[in-house]
Amino acid sequence: MRARALASSFPSISLETDALTAARLLADNQRTGLLVTNAAGLPCAVLTASRLLQLMIPRYVVEDPSLGRVIDELHTAQMRDRLAARSVGDCLPKESLAPPVANAEDTVLEVAALMVRENSPLVVVAEHADHGMDPRLLGVITTIELLGRLSEDQP
Amino acid sequence: MRARALASSFPSISLETDALTAARLLADNQRTGLLVTNAAGLPCAVLTASRLLQLMIPRYVVEDPSLGRVIDELHTAQMRDRLAARSVGDCLPKESLAPPVANAEDTVLEVAALMVRENSPLVVVAEHADHGMDPRLLGVITTIELLGRLSEDQP
Repeated sequence: MRARALASSFPSISLETDALTAARLLADNQRTGLLVTNAAGLPCAVLTASRLLQLMIPRYVVEDPSLGRVIDELHTAQMRDRLAARSVGDCLPKESLAPPVANAEDTVLEVAALMVRENSPLVVVAEHADHGMDPRLLGVITTIELLGRLSEDQP
Repeated sequence: MRARALASSFPSISLETDALTAARLLADNQRTGLLVTNAAGLPCAVLTASRLLQLMIPRYVVEDPSLGRVIDELHTAQMRDRLAARSVGDCLPKESLAPPVANAEDTVLEVAALMVRENSPLVVVAEHADHGMDPRLLGVITTIELLGRLSEDQP
C-alpha cells in the first residue's frame, strides 16, 4: 500500500478567507483541522478547531467560565462578528508550520514515520514532492487513517 | 442551549484494555481520541490516535523514515503485537489528565470556556458534577460540536 492509494480529499481554505467561514467549514465537515493554502494554492498550515474556539471565547470568560452563564445572545453575535472580521492567516499561531509532504510512492510506514517525526495531524501527498518540480497535490492522509491501516491484519 | 442537550455518546475504553483494541476502536469510529475510564467506570484520561501512532512506529524508523520503505510485512505484524501487549493505561503520557467535567445545566459558552481553559479536546457532561454526589455521566461534547454551535446564527 502506497501513499497515493491512501490520499483523500480534505477541506481546505485560503489564508485570506475569514475565520467564521473557516469555523463553519470545520463544523460542516466534522473535522478537527483545515488545510490552509497560500496564494499559489499550496498548503502552508493547518488551522485547528481548538485554535478557532480559543480565539472566539473572550479572555475574561475563559478566566471565569461562570461568566458564560450571564452572557446573552447579543454578546454571542459579537463573538461571531469578531471571528468574521479576522482572516484565516491572522488566526494561525506564530509557530505554525506547513504540514509535511510525502511522495505518492511512499509506503504507509514511511508516511507514519514522517507524521510522528513532524508531530503533525496530517501529511499532504504529492507527486514530484522531492524532484524540484512543482508538486502536484493528490490529497491528504490523517493520523486516524494511518492508525487504522497499520492496526489491520493486512495493512 | 444547555450542555445536557449537546452531550452525546463517545467511544470509551478501560485502562486495562489492550492498546491494539484501542487503535481499532478509534479507526472504526473515525475519532482522534477515546475516553479512558478507570475501574469505577469514571473518565480518567483521553487517549489520542497520535499517541498510539507514536508508540507503534519504532524509534529508528521515526528518525529515518526511509527505513519504512524496506520494512516488511513481518515487522508490521510485530508492531501490532507490541501494541497488543500494552494496556491503554501503559500508553497514556505521564502528564495525562482527566478531561474537564461540565454540569448538565451549563450553557454552551460555559462549556466552551472550560474547554479552552483546560486546553482539552472534549468535555464530559455530568449531573451533580459539583454537588459531592457520584456524578451521572450524560455524554461528551467535542471542540468541533461547540465551534459549530457557536458559529451558527442561532446557537
